[in-house]
Amino acid sequence: MAASSRSLAFWQRVAPRVPFCARERTRTCASVSRLQSSPLSGIHSRSTPIANAVLVKTQCRYKSSSVGSTSSAPVETEDNVLRVGRVKIPNIWLRDNCQCSTCFHADTKQRLHDTFQIPHNLRIRSSESDGKTTAIEWSDGHRSRYDHSVLRQAAAPFKERAIIRQGLAEEPVYWGSEIASSPPKVPHDAPNAMRKILENIRNYGFTYITNVPFHSPTPTEEILTSIAGFLRLTHYGGFYVFTSDLASADTAYTNIALEAHTDTTYFSEPAGLQAFHLLSHTDGEGGASLLVDGFKCALDLKSQDPEAYRILSEVNVHAHASGNKGISIQPFRGFPVFSHDPATGQLLQVRWNSSDRAGIELPIAETPKWYAAARKYNALLKKKRNEYWEQLTPGNILLFDNWRVLHGRSAFTGKRTICGAYVSRDDWVSRWKIERWGDEAAGRAIAAS
Amino acid sequence: MAASSRSLAFWQRVAPRVPFCARERTRTCASVSRLQSSPLSGIHSRSTPIANAVLVKTQCRYKSSSVGSTSSAPVETEDNVLRVGRVKIPNIWLRDNCQCSTCFHADTKQRLHDTFQIPHNLRIRSSESDGKTTAIEWSDGHRSRYDHSVLRQAAAPFKERAIIRQGLAEEPVYWGSEIASSPPKVPHDAPNAMRKILENIRNYGFTYITNVPFHSPTPTEEILTSIAGFLRLTHYGGFYVFTSDLASADTAYTNIALEAHTDTTYFSEPAGLQAFHLLSHTDGEGGASLLVDGFKCALDLKSQDPEAYRILSEVNVHAHASGNKGISIQPFRGFPVFSHDPATGQLLQVRWNSSDRAGIELPIAETPKWYAAARKYNALLKKKRNEYWEQLTPGNILLFDNWRVLHGRSAFTGKRTICGAYVSRDDWVSRWKIERWGDEAAGRAIAAS
Repeated sequence: MAASSRSLAFWQRVAPRVPFCARERTRTCASVSRLQSSPLSGIHSRSTPIANAVLVKTQCRYKSSSVGSTSSAPVETEDNVLRVGRVKIPNIWLRDNCQCSTCFHADTKQRLHDTFQIPHNLRIRSSESDGKTTAIEWSDGHRSRYDHSVLRQAAAPFKERAIIRQGLAEEPVYWGSEIASSPPKVPHDAPNAMRKILENIRNYGFTYITNVPFHSPTPTEEILTSIAGFLRLTHYGGFYVFTSDLASADTAYTNIALEAHTDTTYFSEPAGLQAFHLLSHTDGEGGASLLVDGFKCALDLKSQDPEAYRILSEVNVHAHASGNKGISIQPFRGFPVFSHDPATGQLLQVRWNSSDRAGIELPIAETPKWYAAARKYNALLKKKRNEYWEQLTPGNILLFDNWRVLHGRSAFTGKRTICGAYVSRDDWVSRWKIERWGDEAAGRAIAAS
Repeated sequence: MAASSRSLAFWQRVAPRVPFCARERTRTCASVSRLQSSPLSGIHSRSTPIANAVLVKTQCRYKSSSVGSTSSAPVETEDNVLRVGRVKIPNIWLRDNCQCSTCFHADTKQRLHDTFQIPHNLRIRSSESDGKTTAIEWSDGHRSRYDHSVLRQAAAPFKERAIIRQGLAEEPVYWGSEIASSPPKVPHDAPNAMRKILENIRNYGFTYITNVPFHSPTPTEEILTSIAGFLRLTHYGGFYVFTSDLASADTAYTNIALEAHTDTTYFSEPAGLQAFHLLSHTDGEGGASLLVDGFKCALDLKSQDPEAYRILSEVNVHAHASGNKGISIQPFRGFPVFSHDPATGQLLQVRWNSSDRAGIELPIAETPKWYAAARKYNALLKKKRNEYWEQLTPGNILLFDNWRVLHGRSAFTGKRTICGAYVSRDDWVSRWKIERWGDEAAGRAIAAS
């Protein structure tokens, strides 16, 4: 049996940077501030559809007892029960998460044993603790060893367990128009550029990648591909270079103004990162780019009108992509404008695209309540203090989190050549987790995640 | 203003084939049967996480009044209100869904006007019906025309509106081991092969594509790519040809037996279609392929133990892919084993992979209730009567819906060469919708979807 090599030191190193006791703050001003924990999380209602057309308010948090992963809660075994502090760790969970070489594939980190062959009445025959690990001999003869830091993590609150799993921002910055004076930037050839790029994405929702050659789209394609090793393909293709024509049937390819929106609300999983690089703009003007922090405006809405926030969190909306012949894409189910983690209440995604919106998942006579709530969010998105306008210039890739930051542009004349691409959320967050915490630490957090 | 060209005839043509009054049937035998409407839908509880560790039972259906899209409910306008039967269609919805050329882009089918500029107090100044359409002049002077069949569809129950939107199976077949005697097959070069292939996928969850050249993987790649125009890329790549080594760090690439599972539970959106084509197997034996109808077993579980079904529908589970260096993929939130449409209660997805399972989203002391429910589903999945075993042979692509059908294999010796790929759910369902209903009909269903 392979002894676990997990150490308490790991969690002590990581967790103290992210306190969870930060109280909800009311923010109506647009100034940039750093918050240690997302003020969106915690007290709002769970993201659920409205049943029977009644708005049911439910809390998102589990209330049962738990311990912090950095606690010094004792790990003790007595009368066939292992406890971390006062939390009982069930034998079925312990046995199912045995990490000996018979139960756990060292290369793939996959479970190898058959969970459902674990005896119903499995008991602890004997146990022994050395203060950092506990060894157990089970009633079926199998032997396991558990690192106490992992057991504490498994008994910790969901919010704490979610940090590495979801690759959450540790120092999120919610911004408005004032971000124009010092937008986050990383030279593409800086030391540890990828770490800094993704850290900006996590904390600000966007970044510029500067000093990028623009004689051809190739350097941009290489930089974007390097994030996850590949780009997300859609029915429009992968890496794209487009001008102001109607070759692809989407308003994005015209020269009309586009209000702030998120892309690909018509997918079950919208595009994660999106990039634009203006390679050239000749014989005309206009086409300034607009970014709006969808999370910041959601926060403002929640503060000003919790009922509107709740409606946009609970009423599912449909969308479609049907502009191209042979294409009729719609998500596998409806999704709300604001999607939260059901375990922690953390806001994780904004979907906002009026052009591609289809039905609203309310009995039709009740749809005015969604329109009224959406009107309020729209008003916040369009406040000057929330709009960050920037004229893109060759040499600078604009990269942003399409799950958080809305984008738009003003109308323009002349010929613009822009290139860009999508990177899926799972893939860029995976890269961020590795950059931030490393392979080993990210892997260690799995069983208790 | 462009008059709508939508016709009542369309809905009369489509909808009568899919009655919704079919009562739930209890099915414990494994015989193949055809049901006109999914017996999984309708009465079970909504798929929601457990709040405060209490299992809250809520119904999935909206109860407000609605009309069938094929009804002859009158469309009447009186006192500033348009009604379909007794259902009031709000002015904001009507104005927002105006399809004149100013409000609606003819090429992209996207909304062009600003929803939030619609006056709060918009009123109907005058209206006129010709029996099939109603023309409205609004208090702001704008003029719209609405096809009555579209208005009836917009006022119809969600279940009816979901058929085209979700590309649902119209004649689903739930099967067990007996499917071995007549599994669905389509020669790749048959007339309308793609329509038949996707119809099999929708109704059975799998199909063989036969008569495929196997001298090289290329014909298989071409056939699979032709479904949606591209294949889904992952960190493992796109189209793959693999043998029994550990080059890619996943148990799928070893030669050990694999229990029935779904792939890529570690993605926010698991792979939609999956394909295997055994190109060769030399110097050994074994490696029979196993398919299990996850929906059929879910149906059995629901019938035998509604509480277990409910737990697997409400408790979120985490997963991971962390076998490759630099990769630590986990879904953006936890998902239950059974995912349903929150509007209709229709079962839409099964996630089942014990190897890649991470945490269970319950306070750890309560996880035994999930294990107990999972044990029951596992027992059904492993019943001989539910297992369909087949030795794959060169020339036949096995294509299946990874959201419904579990796959596995027995251990083998020798050298196997298999090729295959993933196609995303949104893309193959889009193709199916076009094959089944056509571009125009699929597009027409959007506003009311």
